[in-house]
Amino acid sequence: MVDIATRVHNHKWKIDPIVRSLIDTDFYKLLMCQSVFRNKRDTHVTFSLINRSTSVPLAKMIDEGELREQLDHVRSLSLTRGESTWMRGNMFYGKRQMFRPDFMEWFENLRLPAYHLERKGDQYELTFEGSWPEVMLWEIPALSILMELRGRAVLNRMGRFEMQILYARAMTKLWEKISRLRELEGLKIADFGTRRRHSYLWQDWCVQAMSEGLGDKFIGTSNCLIAMRDDLEAVGTNAHELPMVYSALAEGDEALRRAPYDVLADWQEEHSGNLRIILPDTYGTAGFLANAPDWLAGWTGIRIDSGDPATGAENAINWWKSRGEDPTEKLVIFSDGLDVAKIEELHRQFSGRVRVSFGWGTLLTNDFRGLVKDDALAPFSLVCKAVSAEGRPTVKLSDNPEKAMGPASEIARYKRVFGVGEQERMAVVV
Amino acid sequence: MVDIATRVHNHKWKIDPIVRSLIDTDFYKLLMCQSVFRNKRDTHVTFSLINRSTSVPLAKMIDEGELREQLDHVRSLSLTRGESTWMRGNMFYGKRQMFRPDFMEWFENLRLPAYHLERKGDQYELTFEGSWPEVMLWEIPALSILMELRGRAVLNRMGRFEMQILYARAMTKLWEKISRLRELEGLKIADFGTRRRHSYLWQDWCVQAMSEGLGDKFIGTSNCLIAMRDDLEAVGTNAHELPMVYSALAEGDEALRRAPYDVLADWQEEHSGNLRIILPDTYGTAGFLANAPDWLAGWTGIRIDSGDPATGAENAINWWKSRGEDPTEKLVIFSDGLDVAKIEELHRQFSGRVRVSFGWGTLLTNDFRGLVKDDALAPFSLVCKAVSAEGRPTVKLSDNPEKAMGPASEIARYKRVFGVGEQERMAVVV
Repeated sequence: MVDIATRVHNHKWKIDPIVRSLIDTDFYKLLMCQSVFRNKRDTHVTFSLINRSTSVPLAKMIDEGELREQLDHVRSLSLTRGESTWMRGNMFYGKRQMFRPDFMEWFENLRLPAYHLERKGDQYELTFEGSWPEVMLWEIPALSILMELRGRAVLNRMGRFEMQILYARAMTKLWEKISRLRELEGLKIADFGTRRRHSYLWQDWCVQAMSEGLGDKFIGTSNCLIAMRDDLEAVGTNAHELPMVYSALAEGDEALRRAPYDVLADWQEEHSGNLRIILPDTYGTAGFLANAPDWLAGWTGIRIDSGDPATGAENAINWWKSRGEDPTEKLVIFSDGLDVAKIEELHRQFSGRVRVSFGWGTLLTNDFRGLVKDDALAPFSLVCKAVSAEGRPTVKLSDNPEKAMGPASEIARYKRVFGVGEQERMAVVV
Repeated sequence: MVDIATRVHNHKWKIDPIVRSLIDTDFYKLLMCQSVFRNKRDTHVTFSLINRSTSVPLAKMIDEGELREQLDHVRSLSLTRGESTWMRGNMFYGKRQMFRPDFMEWFENLRLPAYHLERKGDQYELTFEGSWPEVMLWEIPALSILMELRGRAVLNRMGRFEMQILYARAMTKLWEKISRLRELEGLKIADFGTRRRHSYLWQDWCVQAMSEGLGDKFIGTSNCLIAMRDDLEAVGTNAHELPMVYSALAEGDEALRRAPYDVLADWQEEHSGNLRIILPDTYGTAGFLANAPDWLAGWTGIRIDSGDPATGAENAINWWKSRGEDPTEKLVIFSDGLDVAKIEELHRQFSGRVRVSFGWGTLLTNDFRGLVKDDALAPFSLVCKAVSAEGRPTVKLSDNPEKAMGPASEIARYKRVFGVGEQERMAVVV
């Protein structure tokens, strides 16, 4: 039976919105946003969308008008009362009132700032400028809009049953992955796939399938809206943007050298337990760990987000040992380019030696590889990063030179300051 | 948004009915019913459900109470006004008023007669007794109820996502078959899968997928309800029950020998064109064709429903030639145990030599083979047949002794009367 009101309501849509909530974003964005709101509220930054997969001609596939409609729609959103209640009252990482009243008041009144969109050849140049805590919230919606519009461009050409089969195949593919993961004793895995998801509905399906298929082994989702609606744990800690902006703001080499640790000192004031996770690779993991102050070795764990993950974990273990810490009590979170085979391998290699956990991203929520002609739905490498702070360029090196970002002269300077030598080049999967 | 009325309505259901309409049946049942109504209205018959797959212990899997509820529900059904309008007004096989007013009046007032259900070991004995035109309409609902209840028994143990994946896999499987069939130039194929379908909803999905995937190559469905709702051609001609009952009623060997032709003489009075399809195998194809009157060679085509299909078609071609007919103008309908590989092979072998058409049954609407543990959803060989008429046993020989039915002494007599010698045994797939 048709629900007439729903149908009429749907007909009224000007657009079919891709992002329908300000908390349809990663939990760590909100944590970081609060930290920035507290410590660097007035910092002026520029974020920019960068398509690392130049073979995907986004501007040829996506209509500029449609893209603007979607971005404009995000600017019309504000926190709903229910979302606000959830953020204020829900327990996150075992803690109540994770988000403080002053931050919540600010967030409740927030509308996202203007965007600048320009077509450059077959790509779009999409940038956001303004105060850091506002601009940073554009990252996830901008990415998911571009990813989903590209998907829609492909789907628009398909018949109804053809499309149903496409999803049937994608579901089957994920379920087969889940069936393999179910076999891993003691597995802990979370969804980190918001930014490059196929779509909101698809991510929600993937999360629920993980939940039914893995039971306790599935420990939560980084997506706040899905966590709220499906009553799951919202998970995530912090990301590269903090050290990148702190470093760009640093006056002189000595301050630059200290910047990545300053970030974590600020973080430590606010967070304890499983939120004390080191992300060491922004300017090379080896140097970061070697020069780290002792209090950092007391943190709960580390997130490995670039370079060879097994090497990264072994280095962390050795580092903890060298600082007199017991690795078996430490948490290692793998979050870079994961798929089932890699998860199985890392789980086998590190279970028992450290506490292992996985943040599974793009190949959880957007694995349509091989399902349509010319692989037109394969995920691609789109990022949205802070490119400058107070007019100074940001730099990211990471443990894979393919992921390095920033002006060449600044990259050279950072390499010198952080003592980064030769790095192994690895293809960026997604 | 929830449609509250629909949801409350659903909650009120005593049962979830498997058969919801008297025209959720095969078109040929209705055609035959009208023929019987006209020619043998008062004949007293017994139909009986026979599970040829004794390895499927239906009585252990299906609750007797639930089975009775479903059967009782069918007895509560009567033709709706819309269904009646469709039958009276729709064009079938290019003809209006295929169903005559006197038949329609009778059908509009019909309720299906009582059933007799008894558990015998791990199987159910389910029989229907009464006047032929009433009892014969039990065949399809009885079969689809048993098939679906057995499926539900398996599905009840599954989780929500596990179940969704099951259907995703089954959809993908069918779509891959459709993609192969799409390549066959000049293909004509229909759905003949009502009786052993997985469920009504699934059959409807399969039919719509065929319709989108094959376009003009898909020529219709045998299911009247689906044909009506999806605006498709309802297709089908006649079946073994006509010669089986006519033969049981025959007095003496000479009348028995004539009975299968008497059926078609009655049929010819009513039907022309593509409805003049010979079903020659009830008592052996070879003898049937050899002894057939010349007017039968003038019929439009033949349906091959047992034995090796290629041999059956070659024999038909030779027979037409021997009677001075042009085989390229004749229609050969293959309808026994078909799946894609066999369809491809037969299409290749006979295209151009005759007009070829396929009635695809169980492996269209119930191919869940290999999709669950222990293959618990694989289709199985359930039939519902006329077993006696006016107290005399019916007999079927067919071109495969594995499909023979009836008391041994009568089988021997029929073999003698119809001159059936050695037959090749072939496994019955479904």
